[in-house]
Amino acid sequence: MLVLRRGTSLKVFRKGAEEACLREKAKLIMRPDDANVAGNVHGGTILKMIEEAGAIISTRHCNSQNGERCVAALARVERTDFLSPMCIGEVAHVSAEITYTSKHSVEVQVNVMSENILTGTKKLTNKATLWYVPLSLKNVDKVLEVPPVVYSRQEQEEEGRKRYEAQKLERMETKWRNGDIVQPALNPEPNTVSYSQSSLIHLVGPSDCTLHGFVHGGVTMKLMDEVAGIVAARHCKTNIVTASVDAINFHDKIRKGCVITISGRMTFTSNKSMEIEVLVDADPVVDNSQKRYRAASAFFTYVSLSQEGKSLPVPQLVPETEDEKKRFEEGKGRYLQMKAKRQGRAEPQP
Amino acid sequence: MLVLRRGTSLKVFRKGAEEACLREKAKLIMRPDDANVAGNVHGGTILKMIEEAGAIISTRHCNSQNGERCVAALARVERTDFLSPMCIGEVAHVSAEITYTSKHSVEVQVNVMSENILTGTKKLTNKATLWYVPLSLKNVDKVLEVPPVVYSRQEQEEEGRKRYEAQKLERMETKWRNGDIVQPALNPEPNTVSYSQSSLIHLVGPSDCTLHGFVHGGVTMKLMDEVAGIVAARHCKTNIVTASVDAINFHDKIRKGCVITISGRMTFTSNKSMEIEVLVDADPVVDNSQKRYRAASAFFTYVSLSQEGKSLPVPQLVPETEDEKKRFEEGKGRYLQMKAKRQGRAEPQP
Amino acid sequence: MLVLRRGTSLKVFRKGAEEACLREKAKLIMRPDDANVAGNVHGGTILKMIEEAGAIISTRHCNSQNGERCVAALARVERTDFLSPMCIGEVAHVSAEITYTSKHSVEVQVNVMSENILTGTKKLTNKATLWYVPLSLKNVDKVLEVPPVVYSRQEQEEEGRKRYEAQKLERMETKWRNGDIVQPALNPEPNTVSYSQSSLIHLVGPSDCTLHGFVHGGVTMKLMDEVAGIVAARHCKTNIVTASVDAINFHDKIRKGCVITISGRMTFTSNKSMEIEVLVDADPVVDNSQKRYRAASAFFTYVSLSQEGKSLPVPQLVPETEDEKKRFEEGKGRYLQMKAKRQGRAEPQP
Repeated sequence: MLVLRRGTSLKVFRKGAEEACLREKAKLIMRPDDANVAGNVHGGTILKMIEEAGAIISTRHCNSQNGERCVAALARVERTDFLSPMCIGEVAHVSAEITYTSKHSVEVQVNVMSENILTGTKKLTNKATLWYVPLSLKNVDKVLEVPPVVYSRQEQEEEGRKRYEAQKLERMETKWRNGDIVQPALNPEPNTVSYSQSSLIHLVGPSDCTLHGFVHGGVTMKLMDEVAGIVAARHCKTNIVTASVDAINFHDKIRKGCVITISGRMTFTSNKSMEIEVLVDADPVVDNSQKRYRAASAFFTYVSLSQEGKSLPVPQLVPETEDEKKRFEEGKGRYLQMKAKRQGRAEPQP
Repeated sequence: MLVLRRGTSLKVFRKGAEEACLREKAKLIMRPDDANVAGNVHGGTILKMIEEAGAIISTRHCNSQNGERCVAALARVERTDFLSPMCIGEVAHVSAEITYTSKHSVEVQVNVMSENILTGTKKLTNKATLWYVPLSLKNVDKVLEVPPVVYSRQEQEEEGRKRYEAQKLERMETKWRNGDIVQPALNPEPNTVSYSQSSLIHLVGPSDCTLHGFVHGGVTMKLMDEVAGIVAARHCKTNIVTASVDAINFHDKIRKGCVITISGRMTFTSNKSMEIEVLVDADPVVDNSQKRYRAASAFFTYVSLSQEGKSLPVPQLVPETEDEKKRFEEGKGRYLQMKAKRQGRAEPQP
Repeated sequence: MLVLRRGTSLKVFRKGAEEACLREKAKLIMRPDDANVAGNVHGGTILKMIEEAGAIISTRHCNSQNGERCVAALARVERTDFLSPMCIGEVAHVSAEITYTSKHSVEVQVNVMSENILTGTKKLTNKATLWYVPLSLKNVDKVLEVPPVVYSRQEQEEEGRKRYEAQKLERMETKWRNGDIVQPALNPEPNTVSYSQSSLIHLVGPSDCTLHGFVHGGVTMKLMDEVAGIVAARHCKTNIVTASVDAINFHDKIRKGCVITISGRMTFTSNKSMEIEVLVDADPVVDNSQKRYRAASAFFTYVSLSQEGKSLPVPQLVPETEDEKKRFEEGKGRYLQMKAKRQGRAEPQP
């Protein structure tokens, strides 16, 4: 088996007991419907492609040892940054690799690169980490065991286990914003939370679902980004694009036939960015025994771009109620934490 | 030129001086995404197909005399009944014919038939009447003249003129519900208006639009039916289908890049039917000079079906506020009028 | 540069002067909308994927030498066989390779493989050969020169040149069936040509088109297969699948905003196959100076499958008119020629 340099775009299958696979999947050319009116591909379109690649590679891996047939379900997506815009006419290349397995979960790293086939230019667009759990095809509540991966370096396994433990801790700490329902006001003033808040409903159809009949995580993420984008557009009234998405936990499965309500409201603005909280509620509709429930939530960060693609200052959010002021401060905290991480300092600086 | 029986889905081109064309368009086989979970094709999918056929035939007609290039825009759809359900796997046949032209408008009759290609069974699904207006391609605010149609019988022209005058009157009489904002309540009780009211937002994309860059009437109707269906499903919690749509007037164009908000609320229930009011508001978003405006509104009637396809009694709506009670009475009025028309009597009977 | 065995599924980029690239593009999971009610993916869906891969690789190649920007347009698709069915839930892998270039054209070979990620089974589904021509992005009527490819073996170039000359000859010999309009009859008898003939119209939208604003060859092929499928289904009334498509020449570009009419009629049946002729006409609609024109035509062969996937005898076609009998004989000729080729004999045997 040959080990080849990644940088020259060579791809390798490590077969047999070595389950970690690097698979490149070049997506089709990005079309008008994948993008906004300024020609930038929607962040949600990219999130959906990322999740499809992750679902394929982890489902294949989990079925590779002749055990019980299973489908890998998305449990969590770590924070994802959108490093550069992708445009209509470019080709998106999505490569996925399994980087760690625990007894019951699979960590997949997915890179997205955009290629302009006219100029030959290639740019890294996204790096994402996703966690999947194998669910038995016959019994969707039965979590199966994941076939182990063989690591080329000992450190890979240790580093992977640290990331695994960290995300387990974060998932338990996530405070579920249970009671919060987004209430629109009458004739809201520009730049307030009410002015831009938006919600969308979607009746889950067959194309949205896995073989199990549950909604693909990628479909949910795409809808979440659509709502976040509408909130940002209403607030700024300019060309807005997704800059990043915080970690998303998918706590509850959403079944085919449900009506999902995706609500978004702006929580915080810095000089050049907007944070939007997105909540996903599922309503079983036909199954009267089940009540409406919170299926996922996330924070999206958007920026505003000029016609030349330069980032613009965004109108400052005006929080009005106590809850809105509280969320503004929490958003500022997340913003400063991120800023500090990027600058390599341990504590946030104002 | 042959005169052929409509009922056998025959297609005829009457060329030359005779402008009225009978054109069949065999749509693609109905797919899972066209239908609900019970396998019935969405009323909105059919409305969209109807409008596409109408748009093609009237645009072609209006460009047939070497005048200024134009695109026909949908101005109004008369009341449409859904006579029988269409299922996944069936083929929808849509035939359109121009039945009357005034100086500036075109009346198109569209029939939809569903064909089960395995059994050979054919059923008439819909009969619809649509009114189109030719707008110059260069200047979308300029209404052009419609090339005249040649009628085979004198009475056709007189009857057409009567229908034309009637719809002109109805359009002027339609009171625009300006202040109405659909306000959801906290923890609403089942069977109330608040319990089932729903709204959906949609960012208008390139595929939704005509060559002018404005939203196809059929796209709007499909979104309206989606919201009406969700309202009905939340209320009944059974398999629900569109029974009819009242006349829809399209008063204002919706431009690409707008965010449209489609809201629906139940107004009235009879023993076996539900009336849902659907409002379409357009928000220009980026164009700050233009305010949000009402683009269309309509009343949809839905029925509830058992697993065998029989109509079921629907839970009775419980109007709470004064407005809700008023709308309930108005809905009852429309229901009784329709019932009377079907029974051929002049005055409504309770 | 490393040469690695194909059988271990290692992929290699031959960089620098070596132009021929083997690029694997793993398609996403096949969804319900990609398939018929029996769960078999539509032949047209696969044709569309094949063409998209061909368009990407040839456009990239033609732009690889910093010359005038261009987009590769599909000129011809050689006969394609569908070797085994693909099902919902499987992953389609499409790999494309440039195998020959002449001064103004590119030959691309595309293989499609279906993978069942639950069982690990992989099957070759299609092998296709497509010819592309580079058209300048600034001037769509200007055909550019193709950067030459470097062949690893001398014979590759000679064999390629033979294929190139052969298809050039075939294209010149194809007589365009100009006068033929598909005329439906009154109350047709089962098993006649009229009984199953079908047509479909499609308004070309932005998602259907290349950067030039012309329809992708793959979109046209997908629509052609849809009509052929409806004709076959009406005739057989069973689960039918595409078995093969004869060579398709794309003579005329179809511009965005056109209405395309795709008509299909059965020409010939053998014991277990059906041949369906599909004609594509484009109607500029808005641009009245341009007349309706024939844009493409092809022969599709369909077979009938039982519920277990075994091929069934098909009802024999009953040609009635002189034209139908003539087309039946021509179809029989094509059928026997193909049969002879497969059996390796020079002359067809009756």
